[in-house]
Amino acid sequence: MLGHMFRVSIFGESHGLGIGVLIEGCPPGIKVDEEVLNRELSRRKPGIPYTSPRIEEDKARILSGVFNNYTTGAPIVIFIPNRDINSSFYEKIKNIPRPGHADYTAKVKYFGFNDYRGGGIFSGRITAGFVAAGAIAKIFLSKFNIEVYSYVVRIGPIAASINISSKETLRNAIDKSPIKCPDNKASKAMEEYLSKVIEEGDSVGGIVETVVYNVPPGLGEPPIDTLDGDLAKALFAIPGIKGVEFGAGFKLADMYGSEANDEWIVKNGKVVTSTNNAGGINGGISNGMPIIFRVAFKPTPTIRKPQKSVDLSTGKPVTIIGGGRHDPCIAIRGTPVVEAVTSIVLADHLLRWLSWRDLH
Amino acid sequence: MLGHMFRVSIFGESHGLGIGVLIEGCPPGIKVDEEVLNRELSRRKPGIPYTSPRIEEDKARILSGVFNNYTTGAPIVIFIPNRDINSSFYEKIKNIPRPGHADYTAKVKYFGFNDYRGGGIFSGRITAGFVAAGAIAKIFLSKFNIEVYSYVVRIGPIAASINISSKETLRNAIDKSPIKCPDNKASKAMEEYLSKVIEEGDSVGGIVETVVYNVPPGLGEPPIDTLDGDLAKALFAIPGIKGVEFGAGFKLADMYGSEANDEWIVKNGKVVTSTNNAGGINGGISNGMPIIFRVAFKPTPTIRKPQKSVDLSTGKPVTIIGGGRHDPCIAIRGTPVVEAVTSIVLADHLLRWLSWRDLH
Amino acid sequence: MLGHMFRVSIFGESHGLGIGVLIEGCPPGIKVDEEVLNRELSRRKPGIPYTSPRIEEDKARILSGVFNNYTTGAPIVIFIPNRDINSSFYEKIKNIPRPGHADYTAKVKYFGFNDYRGGGIFSGRITAGFVAAGAIAKIFLSKFNIEVYSYVVRIGPIAASINISSKETLRNAIDKSPIKCPDNKASKAMEEYLSKVIEEGDSVGGIVETVVYNVPPGLGEPPIDTLDGDLAKALFAIPGIKGVEFGAGFKLADMYGSEANDEWIVKNGKVVTSTNNAGGINGGISNGMPIIFRVAFKPTPTIRKPQKSVDLSTGKPVTIIGGGRHDPCIAIRGTPVVEAVTSIVLADHLLRWLSWRDLH
Amino acid sequence: MLGHMFRVSIFGESHGLGIGVLIEGCPPGIKVDEEVLNRELSRRKPGIPYTSPRIEEDKARILSGVFNNYTTGAPIVIFIPNRDINSSFYEKIKNIPRPGHADYTAKVKYFGFNDYRGGGIFSGRITAGFVAAGAIAKIFLSKFNIEVYSYVVRIGPIAASINISSKETLRNAIDKSPIKCPDNKASKAMEEYLSKVIEEGDSVGGIVETVVYNVPPGLGEPPIDTLDGDLAKALFAIPGIKGVEFGAGFKLADMYGSEANDEWIVKNGKVVTSTNNAGGINGGISNGMPIIFRVAFKPTPTIRKPQKSVDLSTGKPVTIIGGGRHDPCIAIRGTPVVEAVTSIVLADHLLRWLSWRDLH
Repeated sequence: MLGHMFRVSIFGESHGLGIGVLIEGCPPGIKVDEEVLNRELSRRKPGIPYTSPRIEEDKARILSGVFNNYTTGAPIVIFIPNRDINSSFYEKIKNIPRPGHADYTAKVKYFGFNDYRGGGIFSGRITAGFVAAGAIAKIFLSKFNIEVYSYVVRIGPIAASINISSKETLRNAIDKSPIKCPDNKASKAMEEYLSKVIEEGDSVGGIVETVVYNVPPGLGEPPIDTLDGDLAKALFAIPGIKGVEFGAGFKLADMYGSEANDEWIVKNGKVVTSTNNAGGINGGISNGMPIIFRVAFKPTPTIRKPQKSVDLSTGKPVTIIGGGRHDPCIAIRGTPVVEAVTSIVLADHLLRWLSWRDLH
Repeated sequence: MLGHMFRVSIFGESHGLGIGVLIEGCPPGIKVDEEVLNRELSRRKPGIPYTSPRIEEDKARILSGVFNNYTTGAPIVIFIPNRDINSSFYEKIKNIPRPGHADYTAKVKYFGFNDYRGGGIFSGRITAGFVAAGAIAKIFLSKFNIEVYSYVVRIGPIAASINISSKETLRNAIDKSPIKCPDNKASKAMEEYLSKVIEEGDSVGGIVETVVYNVPPGLGEPPIDTLDGDLAKALFAIPGIKGVEFGAGFKLADMYGSEANDEWIVKNGKVVTSTNNAGGINGGISNGMPIIFRVAFKPTPTIRKPQKSVDLSTGKPVTIIGGGRHDPCIAIRGTPVVEAVTSIVLADHLLRWLSWRDLH
Repeated sequence: MLGHMFRVSIFGESHGLGIGVLIEGCPPGIKVDEEVLNRELSRRKPGIPYTSPRIEEDKARILSGVFNNYTTGAPIVIFIPNRDINSSFYEKIKNIPRPGHADYTAKVKYFGFNDYRGGGIFSGRITAGFVAAGAIAKIFLSKFNIEVYSYVVRIGPIAASINISSKETLRNAIDKSPIKCPDNKASKAMEEYLSKVIEEGDSVGGIVETVVYNVPPGLGEPPIDTLDGDLAKALFAIPGIKGVEFGAGFKLADMYGSEANDEWIVKNGKVVTSTNNAGGINGGISNGMPIIFRVAFKPTPTIRKPQKSVDLSTGKPVTIIGGGRHDPCIAIRGTPVVEAVTSIVLADHLLRWLSWRDLH
Repeated sequence: MLGHMFRVSIFGESHGLGIGVLIEGCPPGIKVDEEVLNRELSRRKPGIPYTSPRIEEDKARILSGVFNNYTTGAPIVIFIPNRDINSSFYEKIKNIPRPGHADYTAKVKYFGFNDYRGGGIFSGRITAGFVAAGAIAKIFLSKFNIEVYSYVVRIGPIAASINISSKETLRNAIDKSPIKCPDNKASKAMEEYLSKVIEEGDSVGGIVETVVYNVPPGLGEPPIDTLDGDLAKALFAIPGIKGVEFGAGFKLADMYGSEANDEWIVKNGKVVTSTNNAGGINGGISNGMPIIFRVAFKPTPTIRKPQKSVDLSTGKPVTIIGGGRHDPCIAIRGTPVVEAVTSIVLADHLLRWLSWRDLH
């Protein structure tokens, strides 16, 4: 379960009946219907350029918690049935852990009872549950003018240069790019680069940046439930993420305090910082500046090149070539998932903060 | 509260009566006494070279949960009284948020009721509670041969080169270095570099790496309570950490799948991976390889250079010069804290895993 | 969410698409299929004598977490679609809170957004989710020979006399009784009594007793997560329960310590108590004796007699006559629900206990 | 840990250094000092008539979370050192479980590592931590005019008759009675009865009733975290409580629906119920009426009469006579503890409710 007040549990398997999400603690009166959910789900849909050709139509069904198109305050369950499933490849390799996948760890942890078809619960597909819950969280956040944008800032050697000063410009630039990179020039270079990667039967990693606008100061519950800590935990639940950094992040290792510290100034009558190396968070609490963080996605583990593995039923070394369908770079389809997970965590902390807001 | 089975809550303030930790769910029969705790606490003691000159003697008092030098299974509370406190500087600046500190966010979140002296709950001092709990977690882990080592791999522009193949060599090299960097040559260069930073009245960031040996495969509770996610959340509770990456981390963005994937091989009759770009974790579950991750510490925010701020009582800009005591680079004293927090999370996940272990 | 290791969340509404349950933390390798679930669900089925005539066929669909008829260790979702729904009565009274129901509190808490049809989430129907989860918990418990039996011991003025010394005899007697009362004579008297209650268009309360056999000593996590406390919390989630007592319960108020204390004796080489006034629990921990407790069910609130209420849209007093379908005594259909909830809590505490079992 | 937003963990042992409590999530700005805490603690002090003669002076020390006499929003720890300890009796009987105590279950659960002196964590003394946390919860609740009163309604065969219509009269009558029974005549009869019980070296059980005034409608988080369920769980953490019932409670078993249902009426422009058989809770949510419940305390297990037990080191039967100090009826000193625990749960649910309050 993710979250404390706005609580999210995902379920389902890649090749089972479907995948979904349970949300507890969602406030009543949020306008939501299946169309809204499906629009958000389509943003991570496979079949878009440079992503896996799996033909799916993610159609969300709201099983509970919504009445007359409004949330009721009761537990919400959204279910997305699976289609287009062919598990024969996975039956053949069920004893051969694919490099970079969770096949081995799943087999050990679940004593061989895990559903290994299509990666089971470790498939990127399970993130559709996060996206559905995130769609509701976003609507809730929008009542407080909080907006979350995630976009690709790096794929392989190509780094984008992003200007986040206007959120409208940013959103438009993201939407225009087939690979969700708002730097038009970099986006084109990435497309070219990905074509080569696909041709080689390989994959590549990437970095996704997120900016959250209009977060009020005060969100976060130190000393343990910090806003950055809760975001990080949620982000690592997205398959393929191997690193999270806030603000200047790892660059801070080679900065002086006199450079890194964000000075406090007054601007338009508001206390703000002159720089944002902290990424909008001090001491685990939002400071009113945009929250900025980056996550590193590893390359899609499935590739069309031979790799070494072991047949666990015989203990013998074998060579395996990735079957199934895959994206050359999961960072691209990861962007709506990162947005969703971020929205869930912020909705949760916003609800915690609302509890104290009027006491003084 | 950190953790699910082995649960840790820290409390206390920098200039209050003291700081401490509550541990719930600790198994009975772990041998522990105040001497063991104090030995571990002395590893993060201020007053060692290149760290803050605050003269403290952290003396842990076990208030509950230990009887005849063994844990009883009941809640454990460890309390470390404060000494050597002069709060006059903080009274003077209580309306002036220090750049890089949590003064502003604390004031907003807690409606001005926060204890602002010495940073209150946001002081690095509060991490002594983690170290005390981590000492107990380490003893528990040692029964399963699990060992945790954290060390400095970068300060400013100086990067160390570390060989983790022998844990004895590693531990010795860490202990010999005054700045907890097991690369002797880098350690010396860092010392020199820090001397200059101190002279300039400035501070600098750093990177701490952690390696955990002998973690059995199977720890981690996806889809939400992943091992990497729970580690990340815990690590962000350490003041100053702004980034966390596992295995090859952010470098994965510029790697091909064919490079990044760790191939499965058999070595000495055991299934292992030929490389460890995953940092010992696949799909949120330990895979039996050493767990490896790095955290980025920002520079100590307190510096002896003038910085801009705002007097919140008047709304006027002011210039502030860091008072109080401080380390030039918090990464150094951060190493035992990272070890402690890592041990707490592993003890927690080990206990979750033990619950299933004998069912099949 | 109910539970800590074996975690259960129920969802769904009486007149929505259906109701269901999410289970997290269920160990892998438990044999379960939809047939097993449906058999258990049929035990609380409406349409049996002296219960509501609503014609339903609760057919469980396992949406996730089970593969090849075994639990996988992943989150399990079970969904039971609704049928036979006529909501017209509820539309008419949506502003008129029914006495004894949660209509008023739901309207206030959820700002009028609650699904009021058929009582929404407050319908007894939602307990089918507990029954489905309890069916899985029971299979898990059966591997440790733990067995749970709930039965009616009182309806109106008629009290049963029960002998729990043989669990086979007890189970048979429960199954033979249409009102789940293992005292044959009392069962018959209750049937007669209920016929009169039905005739009068009224309803009546009842008491359900539960005995759990073969619980090992050591389950329960004081000082807070006591076994009795966790059972009580779970039981109050069953609509209609207004009291819970363990062992001699409220009778202890008029007992001497010399009567009430269960003396320790050795029997067949085992330490046991000579009496069981504690109901198998000392200090929040199971003591190895059968766990025994009783719950009080209030009368079904829906009756066919005129009752006073208020039209909340006008503030005027009105008279309301219960529509919809109802049982004359919900204690009867409550028995499998109490069994289910008890099994869930025991499975949860058993898993917590297994985590420590082999440490000494 | 008790609670979700206002979270309470108790710690400490009867004959250790002391006992205490950690509170997380307490809002900032609540005026509290050690004097207030000690006043509340003195209400459960041993040494008052008809209670144990153990001479203690419970002096609370606030170790953290309070600054300038106001809560800061940070974790609060209150510690109450132990005095007047003689553990020699417990050394002698450490292998002989006392009837009615948790000695046996503790020994089994904690593999013999438990602190057995004075009952360790199972001593009634540990409830002082609840009382300290409850004192803070009460101050918070008082800002919303919520008031909690607990009192004795039965001891042995003597039942009191209580009028709760005026809270001032009730409070005065409670305070005047040495045994916290607001029915003056019953109080006197109970005194006489207890004198005899003491003379006989025996003990007796009792029933404590609680009424909570001015609870707004809407508190409680069904379907799982019901207000009655969370109260019940908290109450069972008080040693000696074996039953909890709300409103008419177990009497509902012999009531008709037409009697038991509380009809809705308008009184002074407010929607209320004409009776309060539900005890102020419908569907797990407060309905605006006073919350009323009763708990059954078992007789003090320690008595001065010989009882059978087993020497666990030899397996031989032995006879044991209660040593140590004890109250003849723990219900009396239990009243402030029940008040405290009730206040904690209400503060917790109030904070959850405040989170939604202004959304519509």
